[in-house]
This record gives sequence, C-alpha cells and structure tokens, in this order.
Amino acid sequence: MTEQLVIGVDLGGTTIRAALVAASGEIVRRVQRPTPVDSQGALLAAFEAAVAEVVVPGVGAIGVAVPSRIDLSTGRALGSVNIPLQDLALRDEVVRRFGLPAQIENDATAAAIGEWQFGAGRGVRTMVMITLGTGIGGGLILDGRPFRGASGAAGEVGHVVVELDGTPCQGTCSGRGHLEGLASGTAADALARGIYGANANARTLVERGAEGDPPAVAALARLGSYLGAGIASLVNVLEPELIVIGGGFAAAGELVVGPARAVLARDGLTPGRDTVRIVRAELGEDAGLVGAAFVGREALAGARA
Amino acid sequence: MTEQLVIGVDLGGTTIRAALVAASGEIVRRVQRPTPVDSQGALLAAFEAAVAEVVVPGVGAIGVAVPSRIDLSTGRALGSVNIPLQDLALRDEVVRRFGLPAQIENDATAAAIGEWQFGAGRGVRTMVMITLGTGIGGGLILDGRPFRGASGAAGEVGHVVVELDGTPCQGTCSGRGHLEGLASGTAADALARGIYGANANARTLVERGAEGDPPAVAALARLGSYLGAGIASLVNVLEPELIVIGGGFAAAGELVVGPARAVLARDGLTPGRDTVRIVRAELGEDAGLVGAAFVGREALAGARA
Repeated sequence: MTEQLVIGVDLGGTTIRAALVAASGEIVRRVQRPTPVDSQGALLAAFEAAVAEVVVPGVGAIGVAVPSRIDLSTGRALGSVNIPLQDLALRDEVVRRFGLPAQIENDATAAAIGEWQFGAGRGVRTMVMITLGTGIGGGLILDGRPFRGASGAAGEVGHVVVELDGTPCQGTCSGRGHLEGLASGTAADALARGIYGANANARTLVERGAEGDPPAVAALARLGSYLGAGIASLVNVLEPELIVIGGGFAAAGELVVGPARAVLARDGLTPGRDTVRIVRAELGEDAGLVGAAFVGREALAGARA
Repeated sequence: MTEQLVIGVDLGGTTIRAALVAASGEIVRRVQRPTPVDSQGALLAAFEAAVAEVVVPGVGAIGVAVPSRIDLSTGRALGSVNIPLQDLALRDEVVRRFGLPAQIENDATAAAIGEWQFGAGRGVRTMVMITLGTGIGGGLILDGRPFRGASGAAGEVGHVVVELDGTPCQGTCSGRGHLEGLASGTAADALARGIYGANANARTLVERGAEGDPPAVAALARLGSYLGAGIASLVNVLEPELIVIGGGFAAAGELVVGPARAVLARDGLTPGRDTVRIVRAELGEDAGLVGAAFVGREALAGARA
C-alpha cells in the first residue's frame, strides 16, 4: 500500500499548486492557479477546484501547506497575513470536502520536510533549512522529525539577531539587526540600488558580482557575513548535520555562501562548524508541495493505525 | 520499583559531587571531594571513592555528568578541557567498577535535565537553560526530550552571535560578538574593573547596581541587552515555553533580566516573545547531580526492558 498516491497542495500567497504525488516524492500530475485574495470562501473554492483537477480514484490522503501558524493537534490554521485565511479548522474542512484523511502544515516547515524526505536532506537526522527570498524563512528537522516549537512558531531563522540594535527588520517585525533585514533578497535589492541606481535589484547585484564587479562582490560578501553569523548561531545551538539553502536569492551561490563559510569558520564551535554541510536546496518551488504530500501520507498512516 | 534509589555523580572541574537520589529528585545522601587534576587514573579513583561513600545495597544505577562531549550510543566521553579525561569509554568503565547499569551525560545537558525534571522546568515540553557563569553554557529540552545535536555538541547558547565582528570571545573560542564574550560573569568582571578599579568584579557590579549606582545599572543593562538579543534568537528559532537562567551571575536578577526582556519584546516574534516565561533556576549546583541521577534511572529502565 505504500505505492498509494496522495495529494499535496501548496496554498501560496500568489499561486495555489496541487499535485498527485507518489511515495517516492515523484509528482505524477500537477496543476496551478492564481490564489484568490478577496475572500476565504473564494480561496477555499479555488483550492477545491485545484484538487479536483489532480485527484484520481483511490487516492489516499491530502496534505496542505499553508502560510500560517498551525495547531497540529486540532488541524487549525491560526491565520495568515499572505492569504485570506482567518482562524479556521482547515483540516476538518479538507476532510469534509474530500472525504479523505488530511493533515495541514506550515509552508516553511513543509518545504523543510520536502527537502528532508525527497531533496537535499535525504537520510539526514538533523537539518536546518534557510529560505533566502523576499524575506528569510526556514524550518527545522531535529533528531529525525520536524520541530515546530511550543505552538508552531519555531523555525524563524530569518529572525536570529546578528547585530544588537542594528538595521530595522522588514514587514511587521519590530526587531533590529535580524538576518532578514540584513541578508534577504530585499536587503540585496537595497544594496543594489545604492550601487547601481533605482532600477537595480538583487538580480543585478548577483549578475554584476558574477562578472567580478568589486562593489557587487563586496556587498554580497557583507551580506554573506551576516548569513554566516546566523548560521554560526544555528550550528552552535543545534549542531545540525546539514544546512539547506533555498529560495530565489540562493542563486547568488558562493558569492554569498563563501563569505558565510568564512564567518562560520571563525564563529562556529568545533566539531559542528567542521562537520556541517551547507548545500543548495534541490526541489525549488516544489519543496512545499511534496512536503505537504508527505504529511498527508502520514495522516493516511494514522487513519489506518 | 520506581522508588529504587540511584546514584548521581557530577564530575566538575573543581569538585566531584556524588549523591544517592530518589525518584522524586530528593537527595538522600551526598558527598563531595576535590577533583584531582593531575591524571585520569587519579580522577577515576576519586570518582570511585566518592561513589563508595554514598552507595547502599540495592541501588539501581549510576548516572554521571561530565564536562565533555558525549557519544551517547557508546557511552564514550570524548575528552574534556576541564578535567583530566581523554577519549574514554566512561560508561563501560563505570559498569565495570560498580556492576550497575550506567549512563553518562554532558554536564550542561544534565543540568538542563535536572531543572526540567525536578526544578524550574517541571511539566514543560520545550525549554532552554542558560547558565550565566564564568562562561555561558546551556542545554535544550525540545518536545519533551533532551536535544544534543548531531554529535552531542548542541546547546552552546553562549555562542550565539549577537554582534557580527564584535568583542572577541573567551577561552579557546575564536569567535567574535558571542553572548559569552558580552554577557558572562567574566564580561561583567571586566565592566566592573572599568568602573570601580582593579579589585572590582561582577559581584561588585551587582552590589552597586542593587544600590542604584548609575554606572553599574547602565553596565548591567547593556549586558542584559545582549542577553536579550540571544534570548530573542532562541525564542524565534525554537519557540520554547520556558527559559531557565542559572549560574552564579544569575544573582544579578532583574538588573540584567529586565533589560533582556525589553530587547526580547522588540526582537522576539509573536507569539513566542509573549508566551515564553523567563525564570531563575531552582536547583543551583545540584541541577547536574540530580540530572545525572535521572539519566542513570533511564539506564536502569533500559536494562530492565
């Protein structure tokens, strides 16, 4: 029965993605559609329509990744700033609509689970995923299982403080000197504009850096140093085997990760700093989708038990 | 059989402490003696003599806390900078000498376990212990069990980076801007000397601060701000229910913890910053001793299974 297909859904801020996923993580069939932003009813209708396009007879379960804190015991999504979702018993709603075992998961944790089960983290017991995008997110796999904290809010690796009283953070965060404010794609956008003018952005910075332009190389190195300080803190506290770096800004590669490794070599303790591997994510935007399918498959196993 | 007594031993850098401990954590009998620093043989002989003083017929197991990284699966102590202990199969050695089930544990983790089981952390599933002493150590209890990292090196909360390229760290650490270099008792000693002269130390600073002397209050507040940045990082990554603060310098109390709370209120994310409780450790120097006894009791349960 392990070959039974399950459905994974990633309820993203701009795109709903649904897929039929094999136990191997292979995506058998997939669909995507824009995320309605006007109402929870429209969101759920679009979600149901996306699932209807990929479902097949005999499918075993549904797992859903949502940009929300989750109460795993009740299957409630506690509310999102990215999609029109208020406090909602989402798991019950999914079970009711499809008559299948279901589980829901925070999107960042789902992406970490996806990379752990099917991507860069296969076979590892302890890993930290860091997603470098507009913001910086992440997820933790500790001692062979996802770790979510007291109420599902753990894994916010973008909000480690790397400079007390430093640069104000982004968005709704009141913090200062957080990794997200100093090493995200948004931080790179600002550095790019400072060097190359108002039309430049993180992509410009990476392109110029790859060509060896000194201001771009230096800016990306500074940003990488902050990333390295954050990684050093994570290594010293959690001693993971693996750091997986994903997200669009991971495209900067060694221009950022090289300087991060140099700071880790100084600020990390032995043996963790020497044994931890820092690698690129392998699954791109599919990580959350196959991670959601994996948690759906766990709901299936639970329903059978 | 849960009333069976076990022996806990804390092999400290200056003192060996051994105790006969009840399942409740109550210490029934105790002894301490100086730690021999000249040879491993002398250390083990003193260890054996201390245990002989507390052992009673029918005792069930021995647990030992050591200032060393531990390979839990083999029971090896991988070497210490504080006591004359090279890579040694310590668990086997204890079993051989006493003929009882035994387990060994890192001292900082043992202290966290002690507070979790018998002290400030009773009933909690996820907590971080921070020990403010000459250095800053700590231990993690995550989802209801001790977390040790890939090879037993996790929990080094004194080495979170709170200021990239900041003040050099202490001892053998090559890092900069770590919590230990900025908020430990040693950091407080240096601040005290700067204000009150060469004979002052952390105790002076705390005494003057308690009297309201502005330079002391300000110095302790700065130190507390760094502590708050470290706590904010831990809260954002791990979302613990509880932070337990122990160690001799914890005597500074709200002079340090108050400013730390203020930084947490700014740099911590909701809901963790609002739900986490920050409390003083309850067991003092006995935390490692009763924590060691607890892991010994687990070895006893394992031997029966």
